[in-house]
Amino acid sequence: MPQNEFAEFELTKEFRSRFQQALDERDAPFIVTSLEEVNPADITALLYDFNSEESKYVLDLLSVNIRAKIINDLDPETRKTFLSVYTVGELTEIINHLDSDDAADILNELPIKTSEEIIAGLDPDLKSQVIDLLRYDANVAGGLMAKELIRARWNWTVVECIDEIRKQAENVTKFYAVYVVDENDKLLGRVALQKLILSDPKTLVKDIYDDDVTAVETYLEDREVAEIMKKYDLESVPVVNVQGHLVGRITIDDVVDVISEQAEEERQLMSGITEDVEEDDSLWRNVRARLPWLLIGIFGGMLSARFMGFFEQELAKITAIAFFVPLIQATGGNVGIQSSGLVVQSLVSPGYVDEGIWKRLTKVFSVALLNGLLLSLIVLGSTYLLFYNHKLSVIVSFALFCVVLFSSFVGTITPMIINRLGFNPALASGPFITTTSDLLGLTIYFVTVQVLI
Amino acid sequence: MPQNEFAEFELTKEFRSRFQQALDERDAPFIVTSLEEVNPADITALLYDFNSEESKYVLDLLSVNIRAKIINDLDPETRKTFLSVYTVGELTEIINHLDSDDAADILNELPIKTSEEIIAGLDPDLKSQVIDLLRYDANVAGGLMAKELIRARWNWTVVECIDEIRKQAENVTKFYAVYVVDENDKLLGRVALQKLILSDPKTLVKDIYDDDVTAVETYLEDREVAEIMKKYDLESVPVVNVQGHLVGRITIDDVVDVISEQAEEERQLMSGITEDVEEDDSLWRNVRARLPWLLIGIFGGMLSARFMGFFEQELAKITAIAFFVPLIQATGGNVGIQSSGLVVQSLVSPGYVDEGIWKRLTKVFSVALLNGLLLSLIVLGSTYLLFYNHKLSVIVSFALFCVVLFSSFVGTITPMIINRLGFNPALASGPFITTTSDLLGLTIYFVTVQVLI
Repeated sequence: MPQNEFAEFELTKEFRSRFQQALDERDAPFIVTSLEEVNPADITALLYDFNSEESKYVLDLLSVNIRAKIINDLDPETRKTFLSVYTVGELTEIINHLDSDDAADILNELPIKTSEEIIAGLDPDLKSQVIDLLRYDANVAGGLMAKELIRARWNWTVVECIDEIRKQAENVTKFYAVYVVDENDKLLGRVALQKLILSDPKTLVKDIYDDDVTAVETYLEDREVAEIMKKYDLESVPVVNVQGHLVGRITIDDVVDVISEQAEEERQLMSGITEDVEEDDSLWRNVRARLPWLLIGIFGGMLSARFMGFFEQELAKITAIAFFVPLIQATGGNVGIQSSGLVVQSLVSPGYVDEGIWKRLTKVFSVALLNGLLLSLIVLGSTYLLFYNHKLSVIVSFALFCVVLFSSFVGTITPMIINRLGFNPALASGPFITTTSDLLGLTIYFVTVQVLI
Repeated sequence: MPQNEFAEFELTKEFRSRFQQALDERDAPFIVTSLEEVNPADITALLYDFNSEESKYVLDLLSVNIRAKIINDLDPETRKTFLSVYTVGELTEIINHLDSDDAADILNELPIKTSEEIIAGLDPDLKSQVIDLLRYDANVAGGLMAKELIRARWNWTVVECIDEIRKQAENVTKFYAVYVVDENDKLLGRVALQKLILSDPKTLVKDIYDDDVTAVETYLEDREVAEIMKKYDLESVPVVNVQGHLVGRITIDDVVDVISEQAEEERQLMSGITEDVEEDDSLWRNVRARLPWLLIGIFGGMLSARFMGFFEQELAKITAIAFFVPLIQATGGNVGIQSSGLVVQSLVSPGYVDEGIWKRLTKVFSVALLNGLLLSLIVLGSTYLLFYNHKLSVIVSFALFCVVLFSSFVGTITPMIINRLGFNPALASGPFITTTSDLLGLTIYFVTVQVLI
C-alpha cells in the first residue's frame, strides 16, 4: 500500500548549517542525496543563503530540467547577479528547457549581446517563439503570454484533437482546454479537456466547442488582464492579435504574480520608498530609495519654519500657540491619508464606477463635517481644561475643524488627479499627502490665529 | 463561417440610463433582451446601481442558474442587504444552484434561523456537503475548499475514471485532475486529465498516477494556502483531514480572492481606516471607520501640547525653537513609515527568512546613520542661511540626526513585535507609527534644546 505524507519540506536552521558545511567541503554526494526529494521551489529558497559560485556548484549537481526551473523561480534582481557566473553555452542549455514566456523574461534581463548569442543557439521552435515574444513590452498581455498551447482546427474530429495533444505532450503541460481556430488561425472558441474526454472520438470539434470565450488582445495592460481573469474566474485566457489570430495564452499563475507585484508597488508608494528595494539589498540602494521623500519632507519642514517665522511676534506674545502645531498637523495628516486611502481603494477595485466627482465630494464633505465637529468639540473641551484659556481653545478647535475639511478635500482630489495623469494613485496615499497636509494645516492654523486673536 | 469579436461588454452611461428607464417602467422584454448576451459578472456590476427591489426584479427575469451566479458574485456587504428581500423558498432554490463552498459562504452570512431553514430544504447531496463545510472557520483551508471534485480509486481502470467523470459532469466543472484515493479514501495522488486522455482505456490508475502531490490540511490558514499555491504554481490543491482522507479541494480563483483581500486589508491598516469600509457605504459607517485613529492622533497632539508646555520659558526666550517642530516631526514620521514599510514587506513575502534581529538592526542602523548624516548636514546649512543663528542650527540638525536614528529603530521593531503578537504587521505602517514618531521626535528635540541651549 503506497504511503504519502505530504510533509512540506522545512528549511530548518540545522539543515541550513549542515548544508553549508557540505558546501564548504564540496561534498557532492551529500548535496545530491539531501535534495533528491525536495521540490525545486524549496531549493530556490535555500539558494538565497549562498553566493553565486556556491549556488552554481549546487545547481550543476542537479538535472538541467530542475536547474532551469530553479533559475526561473529566482527573483529577477538575484538572478541577474547569479547568471553572470554562467557561460553563454550553459545559459543556452538552461533556457532551452524553459517555456517561451519564461525564456523571454530571462533573455530580457540579460545584456543585449549575451541574449543575442543565446537566442542564436536555441532550438528552432523555441527560438521563433522567443523572437516573437520579445517584441512586446513586459507589462502588456503580449509580454505576459506563453506561446505553448494546444490549437485545434474547427473541422477536426475529437481523435485528431487528441493526436495533437499527444504530439505536443512534451512542450505543453498544465492546460485544461484546447483552443479552436479556423483555417486562418482566427480564434473561434475552446473545448474543455473534460468535454473532450466525454465526447465520442468521431465527433467534430465544431459541434462541441464553446464559442463564448473571453480573449484579450496583445496590447492590453497586465493590470487589466488580471482584472478580467479575476472578474470572470478564468484559469487561462487566450491572447489574440488585432486580426483576431490566436498568438498565445496567459495562465492564472502569471496573473497571481502581477497581483502580488501590484500590492508590493502600492505598499512602497504608500511608505515613501522610491525604488523597488528590499531590506537585504545593498546599503547604498537602501539609502537612495529613502532619500527622495525624506528630502521633500525636509524641504516642507523648512518652508514651515520660514512660514512660522512670519508670526514670530504673535508667538512671542502667546507661546501656547506653538503647543498646538503638532495636534493640527497630525490630524491633517491622518485625515488626508484616510481620505486618499479610500479613494485609492475604489480606483483600484475591479468594477469601480466613476460616480462623478460631485457626488463623491458631497459624501466626503459630509463625513468630514461630522468628524470635524466631533473632534473640534473634544479639542475645545480638553484645551480649555489643560490651559484655562478660552480664546486659545476657540482658535485651536476652529482651526482643527477647518483642517479636517480641507485635508479631506485634498486627500480625495489628489489621488484622482494623479490617476487621471496616468500614475499609480497609491502615490498620493503616502508622504506626498502628509507633506501637503502639514503645510496646509499650518497655513490654516496661523491664518485662524491672525484673524481670531 | 462563425464570427467571434470578443468585445467586452461595456457599461456605458447611455446603457445605464436606458436600463434604469426600462426598470422604472418594469419593461421586462427590454431587460431580458438586453441582458441576453451579457456575462453574469457584468450584470453583477450593473446591479450596484439599483436598490434591492429593483435588483430582485431584474434577477427574477433571468434563469435561476444565472441568478445564483450573480448573487454569488456580489460583495458580502451588498448581498446581505439584498438577500433580505428574498423568501426562504427563493433563497433555497438559489443556493441549490451553487457549489458547496459558495453555498456555505452565503449561509454563513445569513441570520442563523434563515440559514437553518434553508439547509433543511437543500438537495440531499449539497445538504451534507454544506453541513460539513460549515464546521470550519472562514479563514482556514476547510472554510475555503469546495466539496466538488472527482475522486478515483487507485485500483480503477482509466475507463472507470472516465465513467465517474461522466456521472459527476453536472456537479463538477473546472477541474484538471482526478484525485486518487485508496479504499479508505486516503489521498494517494492525482492524474492530470491530459494524462487520462492519452492513456489506454484499460490502464490501471495506480500505474499512471502522480504520487508527488502537494496537499493542505483543513486547519491551514488561508494566507498559508495562498503562499503554497503561489510557491508551487498550483491551479488547485486537494484538502485532507488529519487522517489524510481527501475532503475537498481549493481552486486558484479562491486564492486570488484571498490575495486581493489581503492587499485591501493592508491598505486599510496603512491608511488608518479601522473598518472594512468603502466610500459609498453609509455616512455613519464612514465616520465610524475613521474616528479611532483620529482620536488617537488628537490624544497624541494633546500630549505634545502638554509636553511643550513644560518648555514655555525656553520657547518664550527663543521663539524660533518652535519653528522647527514641523520639520522634526515630519522627518520622524517619514523615516518611521519607510522603515516599517520595508519590514512589513519582508514579513509578508513568501520565502521570507528571519535572519535574526541583530543582523537586521545593524543594517537599519547603517542606513539611518547615512541618511541622518546627509539630512542633518543639509538642515544645518539651510537653517543657518534662513535664521543666521548657529546655536539654533546645531540644535536642530543634531536633534534631527537623533530623530532619524530613533525613528528607524522604532519603525523596524514595532511591526516585528506586532507580527510576533499575531496581528497584521501592516498595522504598524500607518497612523500608529506616525503618532509614535511624533511624540518621540518632540521629546528628542526638546531634550536636545534643554541640553545644548
